[in-house]
Amino acid sequence: MSYNSIRYAVADGIATITLHRPDKLNAFTVEMMNEMIDAFDKVDADDTVRAVIVTGEGRGFCAGADLSDGPSAFIAAEDTPVRPDGSLDYSRQSARDGGGLVTLRIFRCLKPVIACINGPAVGIGATMTLPMDIRLASEDARIGFVFARRGIVPEAASSFFLPRIVGISQALQWCYSGRVFSAREAKEGGLVSQVLPPDELLPAAIAIAREIADNTAPVSVALIRQMMWRGFGMTDPMDAHKVDSRGILSRGQSADVAEGVASFFEKRPAVFPDRVSTDMPDYFPWWEEPAYS
Amino acid sequence: MSYNSIRYAVADGIATITLHRPDKLNAFTVEMMNEMIDAFDKVDADDTVRAVIVTGEGRGFCAGADLSDGPSAFIAAEDTPVRPDGSLDYSRQSARDGGGLVTLRIFRCLKPVIACINGPAVGIGATMTLPMDIRLASEDARIGFVFARRGIVPEAASSFFLPRIVGISQALQWCYSGRVFSAREAKEGGLVSQVLPPDELLPAAIAIAREIADNTAPVSVALIRQMMWRGFGMTDPMDAHKVDSRGILSRGQSADVAEGVASFFEKRPAVFPDRVSTDMPDYFPWWEEPAYS
Amino acid sequence: MSYNSIRYAVADGIATITLHRPDKLNAFTVEMMNEMIDAFDKVDADDTVRAVIVTGEGRGFCAGADLSDGPSAFIAAEDTPVRPDGSLDYSRQSARDGGGLVTLRIFRCLKPVIACINGPAVGIGATMTLPMDIRLASEDARIGFVFARRGIVPEAASSFFLPRIVGISQALQWCYSGRVFSAREAKEGGLVSQVLPPDELLPAAIAIAREIADNTAPVSVALIRQMMWRGFGMTDPMDAHKVDSRGILSRGQSADVAEGVASFFEKRPAVFPDRVSTDMPDYFPWWEEPAYS
Repeated sequence: MSYNSIRYAVADGIATITLHRPDKLNAFTVEMMNEMIDAFDKVDADDTVRAVIVTGEGRGFCAGADLSDGPSAFIAAEDTPVRPDGSLDYSRQSARDGGGLVTLRIFRCLKPVIACINGPAVGIGATMTLPMDIRLASEDARIGFVFARRGIVPEAASSFFLPRIVGISQALQWCYSGRVFSAREAKEGGLVSQVLPPDELLPAAIAIAREIADNTAPVSVALIRQMMWRGFGMTDPMDAHKVDSRGILSRGQSADVAEGVASFFEKRPAVFPDRVSTDMPDYFPWWEEPAYS
Repeated sequence: MSYNSIRYAVADGIATITLHRPDKLNAFTVEMMNEMIDAFDKVDADDTVRAVIVTGEGRGFCAGADLSDGPSAFIAAEDTPVRPDGSLDYSRQSARDGGGLVTLRIFRCLKPVIACINGPAVGIGATMTLPMDIRLASEDARIGFVFARRGIVPEAASSFFLPRIVGISQALQWCYSGRVFSAREAKEGGLVSQVLPPDELLPAAIAIAREIADNTAPVSVALIRQMMWRGFGMTDPMDAHKVDSRGILSRGQSADVAEGVASFFEKRPAVFPDRVSTDMPDYFPWWEEPAYS
Repeated sequence: MSYNSIRYAVADGIATITLHRPDKLNAFTVEMMNEMIDAFDKVDADDTVRAVIVTGEGRGFCAGADLSDGPSAFIAAEDTPVRPDGSLDYSRQSARDGGGLVTLRIFRCLKPVIACINGPAVGIGATMTLPMDIRLASEDARIGFVFARRGIVPEAASSFFLPRIVGISQALQWCYSGRVFSAREAKEGGLVSQVLPPDELLPAAIAIAREIADNTAPVSVALIRQMMWRGFGMTDPMDAHKVDSRGILSRGQSADVAEGVASFFEKRPAVFPDRVSTDMPDYFPWWEEPAYS
């Protein structure tokens, strides 16, 4: 698949996905949706990729759904499904929110994902970053959950992500008002970890990715990503204990742990042999993917 | 219903519910409980109401359950239900905690709710604010989850709300000690968003309500309130995606989105036509109300 | 049971559990696991104990699993279970992660638990503190979720606890990098409440415990601990309301509430008569312990 609305590059173990419609402030389209999903498939399939950075080309990150054709931008597919009786058929794939298809794909990713919010991030431009692990913002970034000002609702599964990340009170204040706010306010509200001068944004993300790539076992990191994100949905610590126990037993007999312990005693960098493409433990995935209905 | 223990007023799109037993620091009674529930029914039914402010008359917010008659204040109904064998019948409506009846009603509200904590808020006076969206406190406010000092337990569904709002460690520290603490400590612990001089408290709440009322679609705001609060209880982002998709599809074809997009391009204030009383989408409510048992 | 790897002492209503393998920085072993579980059983059974402090002997808190015998430290039991077909049998008790057996036991505790992190707390030394209610750290403490650097995964049910305590983004950053970090960073990231000079660490914990012991009803505190921790796993506030209602009805007729209300009106310290060993309400426990499988 060659890309039109994004760019995809891998260097030194780090994949960079760049939203690439700079004359439109990288506004989101169905094409961009499909290309982003495909790019995350590439990320997971490529063992040389140890972390992913998502950023925008030019002065924007993502200005939200492309409204050039009017409100229809908010309907994922062109064939809006209608039942014989004229009512809308919500169960059809084509009725699924496109932002959600992207964020659910990112949620399932097996590599660390770092958002570099280099400029305006509005609507889906803001909500697409929520299932990413770490959000860094440029001083030029401006962020808005503007849905209530457009007559629609927050999407991209943000009602799962946003109150867990910034707290219910902050989530509601931003969504109620629909106001566009500064990078500084995003940091104070817990949405981004750091606010940086524009030219320090990408280097900061690369430094985080480097520390992971240079020191840790890829299979461990892949399991950690899914363990921690799915821990949020657990209703009892016993559920975590079941997953942990399989993890400790299985990884505790792996070639990776032998290298991890030996390198620790020998005070040298570890060179972990196991690969995400071939060495994920047999209990993975430990969950059942819920169906859309 | 005319009110005795509270006051209810609507002005410029904002409803104000004032706890009104000033000679008792607005201590909570069964009458106040019933009147608060009724007032929130009014709020939801009145399309002119875009936001709600809850505050207390005089120098207190709410001093907790009225203990004039002793510990019986902690039993919601006078006819404590007893089974034929003498054991207590917890399944009877009359055994339900009165604070919980209020907070579950606020949880279901369709308008933004702002607590103006103008003075002491103790026991149910503190826990009743937890399902409100935004808490502002006067410098005179003092707050206490005092239950362990009275020999009872936190109520009003606070074990759902409090650890999610302030974190488990802070929730436990305040509940274990039963200590009454300052507005400043409440802010540092994440319980209130702002601490204000007494005469700036109500104006700050009105400003927040105004920004919502003047810029956003009422149906969007009603959906946002339920989406975000219920997002907390979801176990998987797919559950959010199902709700979002219905929301985007349905609101994406509404008169509101047409106005929202048109006003955006025309750089003018939007005038949203849809009303909460008549235009909530057909998938609302998307959840089943759990029964008490 | 006499202890070899820990020390257990009770004074003035406060139990202190001291990890005690100082020449190994209190590295975790199966023996230590069993002794810790037994000590928490003692804590719950002893009505004179109103709070628990967990700390480490010497200059460490707990340096993680004892790796003297190599990677086998990460397998809870020596008889790694194997099915007839040669595959690993995850369902066997002996395959359960030992760290998780400890944290699930602490999760069920009926007394407040305060961690005094006096020095390095790494691996299980860090994750064992997560189900404790309050974490205080010495300026000398260093903490690390180092699993990805050893080729294994976070354990001790930490995927339930850690993202809820410090947020998903911070949890992932610490677990991805496996970096050992300072007490100050732990405080900034929300993992510990206070950082103190070494000689003020234990006194600070004792002061917190004293305030609880001197002012509150033991049965209330035991119920609060379980209500708040289990509130995290609830999917709807109705679940909390059901538990609250039983609590208010039951404790509202107790000898404790009579004393709590009387002492309040008489402005004197309360002397609560009810005991955890004999006076827990009949609806306790209100949950079913999930089975390991």
